[in-house]
Amino acid sequence: MSGIVKVGIAGLGRMGRHHAENLAFRVRGVDLVAACSPLEAERDWAHDSLGVRRRYADYADLLADRDVDAVFLITPSSLHPAQIIAALRAGKHVFCEKPLSMALEECEAVEAEAARHPDLRVMIGFVRRFDASYQDAQQRIAGGAIGRPFLVRSETCDQNDPSGFFVRFAPTSGGIFVDMSVHDIDVARWLLGSPRATRVFATGTVAVHDGLKACGDVDNGVAICEFADGRMACFYASRTMAHGHETVTEIVGTGGRLTVGRDGRLNQVEIADAHGIRTLTTPTFYERFADAFLREDSYFIDSVRDGVTPSLTLADAKEATRIGIALRQSLEERRMVEL
Amino acid sequence: MSGIVKVGIAGLGRMGRHHAENLAFRVRGVDLVAACSPLEAERDWAHDSLGVRRRYADYADLLADRDVDAVFLITPSSLHPAQIIAALRAGKHVFCEKPLSMALEECEAVEAEAARHPDLRVMIGFVRRFDASYQDAQQRIAGGAIGRPFLVRSETCDQNDPSGFFVRFAPTSGGIFVDMSVHDIDVARWLLGSPRATRVFATGTVAVHDGLKACGDVDNGVAICEFADGRMACFYASRTMAHGHETVTEIVGTGGRLTVGRDGRLNQVEIADAHGIRTLTTPTFYERFADAFLREDSYFIDSVRDGVTPSLTLADAKEATRIGIALRQSLEERRMVEL
Amino acid sequence: MSGIVKVGIAGLGRMGRHHAENLAFRVRGVDLVAACSPLEAERDWAHDSLGVRRRYADYADLLADRDVDAVFLITPSSLHPAQIIAALRAGKHVFCEKPLSMALEECEAVEAEAARHPDLRVMIGFVRRFDASYQDAQQRIAGGAIGRPFLVRSETCDQNDPSGFFVRFAPTSGGIFVDMSVHDIDVARWLLGSPRATRVFATGTVAVHDGLKACGDVDNGVAICEFADGRMACFYASRTMAHGHETVTEIVGTGGRLTVGRDGRLNQVEIADAHGIRTLTTPTFYERFADAFLREDSYFIDSVRDGVTPSLTLADAKEATRIGIALRQSLEERRMVEL
Amino acid sequence: MSGIVKVGIAGLGRMGRHHAENLAFRVRGVDLVAACSPLEAERDWAHDSLGVRRRYADYADLLADRDVDAVFLITPSSLHPAQIIAALRAGKHVFCEKPLSMALEECEAVEAEAARHPDLRVMIGFVRRFDASYQDAQQRIAGGAIGRPFLVRSETCDQNDPSGFFVRFAPTSGGIFVDMSVHDIDVARWLLGSPRATRVFATGTVAVHDGLKACGDVDNGVAICEFADGRMACFYASRTMAHGHETVTEIVGTGGRLTVGRDGRLNQVEIADAHGIRTLTTPTFYERFADAFLREDSYFIDSVRDGVTPSLTLADAKEATRIGIALRQSLEERRMVEL
Repeated sequence: MSGIVKVGIAGLGRMGRHHAENLAFRVRGVDLVAACSPLEAERDWAHDSLGVRRRYADYADLLADRDVDAVFLITPSSLHPAQIIAALRAGKHVFCEKPLSMALEECEAVEAEAARHPDLRVMIGFVRRFDASYQDAQQRIAGGAIGRPFLVRSETCDQNDPSGFFVRFAPTSGGIFVDMSVHDIDVARWLLGSPRATRVFATGTVAVHDGLKACGDVDNGVAICEFADGRMACFYASRTMAHGHETVTEIVGTGGRLTVGRDGRLNQVEIADAHGIRTLTTPTFYERFADAFLREDSYFIDSVRDGVTPSLTLADAKEATRIGIALRQSLEERRMVEL
Repeated sequence: MSGIVKVGIAGLGRMGRHHAENLAFRVRGVDLVAACSPLEAERDWAHDSLGVRRRYADYADLLADRDVDAVFLITPSSLHPAQIIAALRAGKHVFCEKPLSMALEECEAVEAEAARHPDLRVMIGFVRRFDASYQDAQQRIAGGAIGRPFLVRSETCDQNDPSGFFVRFAPTSGGIFVDMSVHDIDVARWLLGSPRATRVFATGTVAVHDGLKACGDVDNGVAICEFADGRMACFYASRTMAHGHETVTEIVGTGGRLTVGRDGRLNQVEIADAHGIRTLTTPTFYERFADAFLREDSYFIDSVRDGVTPSLTLADAKEATRIGIALRQSLEERRMVEL
Repeated sequence: MSGIVKVGIAGLGRMGRHHAENLAFRVRGVDLVAACSPLEAERDWAHDSLGVRRRYADYADLLADRDVDAVFLITPSSLHPAQIIAALRAGKHVFCEKPLSMALEECEAVEAEAARHPDLRVMIGFVRRFDASYQDAQQRIAGGAIGRPFLVRSETCDQNDPSGFFVRFAPTSGGIFVDMSVHDIDVARWLLGSPRATRVFATGTVAVHDGLKACGDVDNGVAICEFADGRMACFYASRTMAHGHETVTEIVGTGGRLTVGRDGRLNQVEIADAHGIRTLTTPTFYERFADAFLREDSYFIDSVRDGVTPSLTLADAKEATRIGIALRQSLEERRMVEL
Repeated sequence: MSGIVKVGIAGLGRMGRHHAENLAFRVRGVDLVAACSPLEAERDWAHDSLGVRRRYADYADLLADRDVDAVFLITPSSLHPAQIIAALRAGKHVFCEKPLSMALEECEAVEAEAARHPDLRVMIGFVRRFDASYQDAQQRIAGGAIGRPFLVRSETCDQNDPSGFFVRFAPTSGGIFVDMSVHDIDVARWLLGSPRATRVFATGTVAVHDGLKACGDVDNGVAICEFADGRMACFYASRTMAHGHETVTEIVGTGGRLTVGRDGRLNQVEIADAHGIRTLTTPTFYERFADAFLREDSYFIDSVRDGVTPSLTLADAKEATRIGIALRQSLEERRMVEL
């Protein structure tokens, strides 16, 4: 493949637009040549704002476009497995937003299909692996800065949306652990050296959004995951924070501890007034990880152009899903689950 | 009872000496009139350094001292139940360091004996309840500052002692959860409004001190405790921190979050040098809670003098023990435990 | 002198009561035997709350009390020099709250009188020298932790009192630099190795309290002080902070920087709510330095009992006054002042 | 002017390369069509790495290029005035790195020339005005968040370069205040509402780099600047920090205080180990302000394209220079300087 990777993007919702803008304006070595959305307004936006010429209402048409080297899938989660498989069969590289799937068999089907196309790159968007601070932590750990790491404590806490808008999507979100903690799970595995999970325990509560009870979900969940060789992880996911979004990960080793993301500051301004001395927090994960999304997109494009297999594999995505599903099962069945 | 409470202290190890010095020099309305220790050197110290005139090698003799209104028990944990019961039968008020006991039946026996002496005050030393910051948090919660509290995440992390001296005491310590997390358990119950625990899950690992394996204990343990009405707590206990002692408690409510003790700073000095910008941490829990120990001692003396029942009850101590024992059981039997 | 120092205190205003309570209940080796105040209510308080038996309306009577070894002067600043001299002539050791005086000749007169009584201890209460964090910083510097120290930046910022009550006392306060910055001046000299000041420049503004203009004072002042050998200090004093009291001192050396007191946290509670992530600040200097006042009182009592000359000397107090006066002069005359 | 601004850049040293990469890859609406450098290696880099086709060894040739709409001057400071004037006469818009000049007459000559070309945009690169945190602070102030702002305390502290490489450039740098504090001066004026400076006092010391003495410069300087209407600023500039680069600005108002940039954290990782709890600091100003440089470049390009006069004017740059020169004069002549 020559210097420029030609990309078609499918899905232009909020996250899709972020990826599309990265590909159109910020990532080097890429040409965003096509966009696919069932909504005409989104297709028009791609044309008018990004200068994307070829627009498709139908995903099959995007895949039929011979000029597209790689697709970016920022589509509803339930479509991911089939869309990835179809793209691979059409000879396209695939970047797909997390999660890979909410069903283990589907993960395996995607993995099997990808194995049949060793020359095509496939990567699921676990964005934290591309955050500069998480990477710094990972490198310090690899360099021995905290001795042998044995415990990760990681939380993903969203600011409360008083309207409870997200409750509508709860039935298809996979539940709080698959939807939110899957990032913490992947990070924990990555920072602990990809150990095998052996058992999990999870519980949770509906603190604010009673509407979640109908589908058995919670708005605050906690979990413990045990890995082989005495490694452990604790997770906390919340949708009800008052002050903003926080993603915090602690890694404890025999020689020290690293903490990533504490306080999640919006910027470098500190305010001293009648409320005390205070800082503001990023309202959503997007402000927290905007740079990481850009680095993620660039990494994938580089992988495609250079013919290098991404270090973040489908097996990683499958394992994160497997653990997330076990957590949900533990919550629902009120028992410890062995893997 | 008139203005001055006459106290005899039993146990003059490190913690005993701290309490004895508080009673001798810092607490108002108290006279430390007697000290009991099997070690002559400790008895001499009480005389020479604190001016305690009456010294006893034998606990029975201390209890026989008619001039003693109240005893402070800073003795080995396994002696607590019998010593408390004997003191009550001798008509003495009792302050006893935590834990009340490592066996539930013993807690109940003490509770029953205390019920027979309604005019005697008995209090177990859960020191965090007397820390100014924990009290401030508790008052804010009671005042509605964070809405309805539903989750406590609390950790007690000791600095690693490379000599592993504590391993020797592991067989009688009750295990990491009963020995260390019992404080977090009590604090969680207190801050969540004393809910009833329903089930627990715990696990742990031996990260550094292999000697612990012989008695089934760990040097790093994590746990989840579920209470009635959708309240929850997560605990972390560690004996292997590189940087010092930290006791941190987060309380999450529907309207905000409080965090107590983060970073456990030794003092108000910040250092900027080749290592970065840094603060030092208290080496042990004692520096962290020195003021709280004094307030605790004063509170108990005031309770005795004023004839007021302490708000921290034997039932609280029993419940913390009950949960601690369940955590140990969960760790040892590798299963969820229902209470 | 035997073990117990017998003290008489003069002045029972807010600060006087703090010292009196320390002497009555917290300092070892002292007996508060007498109290002097022109106000009957204050004398009664000393008797009823502290158990002080001998009470005097007249300072001369206190000095005539043969049973008093040492006096504590917490009286109006303008009285300090004459009262110290009288006490020395009466054969009493003297602790006197800062400032020594607002006039250089008076400082010298006190110094001369003290020189005639080499066996009597005299100390002015520069309380920061007894704060554990400032002491830690001083010891680190002495130990070479930051190389050669050459710059101190120090600020004393009080929370605004919207009533402007303090404006009434402005005419006799000595001005913002003598009243407030004198602490920063003393700390700077102490941490820089007691260098000689060579010139100063100061300015300021009335940001809030217009009433100060009548006496030429300001509510926010900034200053630079140059010492011999290329050492420097910058000062900031404010009476108008919105969030609380802060005393912050930075010491910059050739090998690092120390910062003492940043944020002035009220306690160890952090609040995350709709206002962001925040901590509260001590409302006044007293909460910030309560421990230091106790250590200061204890240090002076120990000095008297052990016959040791305090390391904080009258020459230090005189020099701080000398610099403070020069700052005021620079502010008033709008020019650089050489010393 | 149509959508795309065609830019030629002069100067491809470290800062020049940063701007060139921004223009080539990250700024929208711009085409980097030409590069000028006396060094062949730098010209080759522009071609090979950025794809710049037209390369010039001579600045006059760049100006003669009819295809160039605007020039970016990242050249030695002493060349700025003549180069800006020449560019304007050649009909080019001009972005020039700070400082505008180290001589007031030159500032005025540039200002006069620019006035003759009202359709050409000229902007000096005071990058902090484009930093998201400084902008947030400015907007809060404008919105009344801290009442009336009256004091700015601002510092620029570079990590020490033990090799003292910069000493070589000291004779032409303009001195520490013109070279470093000029940023703080501009920020102070901006945040205080562009008041007129009335007098300044500055001093400094050579703490580490004795070589500076030859040209009368210092490696640590402090200053006070008084503005009209009781506004004030304090500056601190250092070239000898042990821990990294810090740019910190405090703005004090009648209703609160904002602090920008405290601690200058490298990233969101916190390390707890034998050195304490610590964070690392950005090594140079460039990491701290990388995003701001990009926003600055984009802002200028947008100004050119949209025909809008930048809010950051030549008058601002002249005033910052004027104050910086007065600070140097105060340092050199050891006196207060009136403006």
